[in-house]
Amino acid sequence: MTNSFKVLDPDYETKARASFTSQGIMRLLGATMRNVVPGRCIIDLPFNENLTQQDGFFHAGATSTIADSAGGYAALTLMPAGSRILTVEFKINLVAPALGDRLSAQATVVKPGKTLTVSTIDVFAYSGDNRKLCAIMQQTAICIPQSG
Amino acid sequence: MTNSFKVLDPDYETKARASFTSQGIMRLLGATMRNVVPGRCIIDLPFNENLTQQDGFFHAGATSTIADSAGGYAALTLMPAGSRILTVEFKINLVAPALGDRLSAQATVVKPGKTLTVSTIDVFAYSGDNRKLCAIMQQTAICIPQSG
Amino acid sequence: MTNSFKVLDPDYETKARASFTSQGIMRLLGATMRNVVPGRCIIDLPFNENLTQQDGFFHAGATSTIADSAGGYAALTLMPAGSRILTVEFKINLVAPALGDRLSAQATVVKPGKTLTVSTIDVFAYSGDNRKLCAIMQQTAICIPQSG
Amino acid sequence: MTNSFKVLDPDYETKARASFTSQGIMRLLGATMRNVVPGRCIIDLPFNENLTQQDGFFHAGATSTIADSAGGYAALTLMPAGSRILTVEFKINLVAPALGDRLSAQATVVKPGKTLTVSTIDVFAYSGDNRKLCAIMQQTAICIPQSG
Repeated sequence: MTNSFKVLDPDYETKARASFTSQGIMRLLGATMRNVVPGRCIIDLPFNENLTQQDGFFHAGATSTIADSAGGYAALTLMPAGSRILTVEFKINLVAPALGDRLSAQATVVKPGKTLTVSTIDVFAYSGDNRKLCAIMQQTAICIPQSG
Repeated sequence: MTNSFKVLDPDYETKARASFTSQGIMRLLGATMRNVVPGRCIIDLPFNENLTQQDGFFHAGATSTIADSAGGYAALTLMPAGSRILTVEFKINLVAPALGDRLSAQATVVKPGKTLTVSTIDVFAYSGDNRKLCAIMQQTAICIPQSG
Repeated sequence: MTNSFKVLDPDYETKARASFTSQGIMRLLGATMRNVVPGRCIIDLPFNENLTQQDGFFHAGATSTIADSAGGYAALTLMPAGSRILTVEFKINLVAPALGDRLSAQATVVKPGKTLTVSTIDVFAYSGDNRKLCAIMQQTAICIPQSG
Repeated sequence: MTNSFKVLDPDYETKARASFTSQGIMRLLGATMRNVVPGRCIIDLPFNENLTQQDGFFHAGATSTIADSAGGYAALTLMPAGSRILTVEFKINLVAPALGDRLSAQATVVKPGKTLTVSTIDVFAYSGDNRKLCAIMQQTAICIPQSG
């Protein structure tokens, strides 16, 4: 994996946090952006009963939603000022029941690109300080350049 | 694709609708189960501003959440009474911006199995009667048999 | 799915067949391009013992290889003259053992695009005239425009 | 990720190497199993012109084939004696052109399970000692228990 990322927009954090704030679904779910640095982003989601599937775990859709946003913002940190980002596709394996106080989606860019950026996202379920890997995602995002 | 499905539990619809009702996240998003027949399920999601990403489209997570549930319930219709279902993994391509009055996730079982069931899900964005394909998903679900 | 495709290069078949012929791995495996029309392509692979996994079935890699090429050439038929194509990513579910006289990978473009094209590919295992679905794939390909 | 794996079959290496040798496609491609330890496996593939796509790179199918086998054997090392393994599904992102002297697919089990095992596989392209990440895969494999 690439560990030293080239930053094209020094305001990446302001840009990422402003975009996150504008996502209605993050407010609806109660997600927060814990951390955003070049090529990485962490989004947390405290448990509540509105986020469940039929067994009372976090729904795979809730897990996917924060993982997808974490991946997108990790990618956005490396894009030029003024560009927008859209998810092209993602794939998620739910490797353990998402059961705990909160989920934390931790994204890392694997391959930044002018057009396409590929990231991997690990989602952990926390019970107090104890964490368990509950999902892994691979995601492709596309950069939409600023229109002249 | 397999088009004639073998039904093991005649109460499949009651079972699927009861399970759907117990998913907190479906209420939170405002999704409804429009149709459930053997091997198929349709889940609708009217637009509202709480479901958006940064450009005002439905968030990929909202699209994924209803697609994942539609796939799971399509699979559940073919499982024995008393069994539970969990998503193993899914992959989604967002092929067009999810922009419209409502989304509709339409799932079909491709390969039912005693342990694993594979489904594909098409998600359409409706603007009035006009519909546009906005996402396609492949999903694997696992049947957890009733414990003695 | 989109069923009427816009053809930008009338020589799409010549272009696709020439590219196929230049793929060393298709010769090595013994694959043939059966059919290529706008937005669709079929690649066949007769069984031989060099294509097996440990149980004597076609290896998932053989299945994936022809499915990936079929998807790529289905996409290429819709691209402008002079452009090249690369696979961005794909996801395959192996839904039944790939056992038979031959495999046939049948690709359809779901969403053509100037940059990205998404296709689905069904792979059937044939025993005589009898066919069984053994794999389904979703694929994203990227068009590399002709450089000036 | 889980880093300490529980070994159920002390003959895991003999079992994995014998299974690998029985895969016709590995001989056909010229792949070798470099290393297999509990929860990990590395498969190498030297370049030759029979493995190419239309631009002379390794075909995505060659990359996928060794990545799929590496993932399967990493999973097999953790399964009970007498069990067989099949790939359920995988997803691969081709993040850079696969161009070099050889490919090396390096698999790690992320979540072992009695029924399903999930692995991630990184594929590197080597030019001499220089390596470049060219693909990442997430894979699900299923354990078929020894029949009585």
